[in-house]
Amino acid sequence: MLKVPEHQVAGRQAIDGKLGPLIDNSGHFYKPLQDDDERGTRELTFYHSFSSNTRIPHHIRRFFPVFHGTQLLKASDRSGLRPHLVLQDITSDHLNPSILDIKIGSRTWYLEASNDYIQNCFHSDKTTTTVSLGFRICGLQIYNESGFWKPGRKLVRNFTADDVRSVLRKFVSSNVGPEPDCCFAGSVYGGCDGILERLLELKTWFEDQTMYHFRSCSVLLLFDKESFLRGKTPFAEVKLIDFAHVVDGNGVIDHNFLGGLCSFIKFVSQVLADSKGSTMEDKI
Amino acid sequence: MLKVPEHQVAGRQAIDGKLGPLIDNSGHFYKPLQDDDERGTRELTFYHSFSSNTRIPHHIRRFFPVFHGTQLLKASDRSGLRPHLVLQDITSDHLNPSILDIKIGSRTWYLEASNDYIQNCFHSDKTTTTVSLGFRICGLQIYNESGFWKPGRKLVRNFTADDVRSVLRKFVSSNVGPEPDCCFAGSVYGGCDGILERLLELKTWFEDQTMYHFRSCSVLLLFDKESFLRGKTPFAEVKLIDFAHVVDGNGVIDHNFLGGLCSFIKFVSQVLADSKGSTMEDKI
Repeated sequence: MLKVPEHQVAGRQAIDGKLGPLIDNSGHFYKPLQDDDERGTRELTFYHSFSSNTRIPHHIRRFFPVFHGTQLLKASDRSGLRPHLVLQDITSDHLNPSILDIKIGSRTWYLEASNDYIQNCFHSDKTTTTVSLGFRICGLQIYNESGFWKPGRKLVRNFTADDVRSVLRKFVSSNVGPEPDCCFAGSVYGGCDGILERLLELKTWFEDQTMYHFRSCSVLLLFDKESFLRGKTPFAEVKLIDFAHVVDGNGVIDHNFLGGLCSFIKFVSQVLADSKGSTMEDKI
Repeated sequence: MLKVPEHQVAGRQAIDGKLGPLIDNSGHFYKPLQDDDERGTRELTFYHSFSSNTRIPHHIRRFFPVFHGTQLLKASDRSGLRPHLVLQDITSDHLNPSILDIKIGSRTWYLEASNDYIQNCFHSDKTTTTVSLGFRICGLQIYNESGFWKPGRKLVRNFTADDVRSVLRKFVSSNVGPEPDCCFAGSVYGGCDGILERLLELKTWFEDQTMYHFRSCSVLLLFDKESFLRGKTPFAEVKLIDFAHVVDGNGVIDHNFLGGLCSFIKFVSQVLADSKGSTMEDKI
């Protein structure tokens, strides 16, 4: 039985007869290959290249969803059979995952793209935090006692630097009100299994790898309070998703992704540092 | 006695009655403040802010030319008295310095600039290596037995990634022909006093500092064979120059500069690694 993903926070959704991804109960995520542009083909090419690439270290492979090939499935827009990428459903192990989808990089376009595409991206990049911060939040859901807080796309698109800081605090808080308590910051962002350590691992790889340039690719942060309270590991995860715009690195590092990632790391570090500061103050 | 700098490799030059920088025999570099735009004022503001900023670590201050205030001088375009920034002449201690001027960052524009300025920069960035490599060489001179090799601006502007690699090899070679020997690579790029170590020091600071964003700023690499052969230190230097487009960091790291710097570091590392490889092969 295929169904619409419950925890999708960004991208095209399989609702109202539109084309979008589907999931099953066995932990698979089915992403339709679109025929209106080259995105699907490029993403499939990337997964094939990445899967068979022996130069990818094991600890880096963990950041990517497992790829199970392609499968012909009835598309969600009822247009009939269509090839789908079969990927790991990252959220399937989690009950009520809080999720942040962060598009990394201070530009989402690439020289090989069409002029129209470049102009569209250039505009979006300038009017979101992409240019100023080197990344933008594309979507999110944060679980709290009253359910999920999931702001609409327009609201998310208009996020400022301060909104981003606020979201990063709420993500690790027991409350999502104006004064988030950041009570999970130390465990979720900090520590040797925390998100910050994972991001630094990724950064080290990006300082060196010259194989792929990840345009318009997202880092997905996933944190599950239930798993945390039950002592399940990992209760926080970092994954890379969306490879429809990956281009050849041609022997150059992905300085656009790396710069944005470093900026995001600084934001997370600051929330972590501030939360330690406030905990200290509370104790005094 | 003021004169036109002998070792200027990029930027406006004080020749043919044009406005440009001058030097004296006491190690000073006089940069005219222009009244046609805000550049001069912004650069002066930066030097004032930076000089008095107590949060700049000592080892980072060394990357910047010493600032001695401003002085009214007869301008090189014979337009009369004009205020000049009085800076350290970085080349004054060197006899025949080989110099690379590398503009760092995958974009040279900034959100606060005018639309025309953004469009001009956007075009230059796409048609040089700025977008693809995250930096571009703006000018250079390389000393060899027959004098200086100093390619023209148009040639430098059209440099490809391979040209950049070739220049980085020639910079540390005794010859500038098609097969540079890279015989100085180990001493100039490598080692604890080498350029790579300095660039990594700078990188560490840029991963953390959120005070300034350095748009259109250059890293100047300077290497003097004479000083090297005479055992003088430092015979290789790394300096930052051109601060007419420095803007407030607003609590965000300069991800644009950092990404480009990391890309440049990778290029230098590769030349160093290749030179070690070839030396090993020569020995076998």
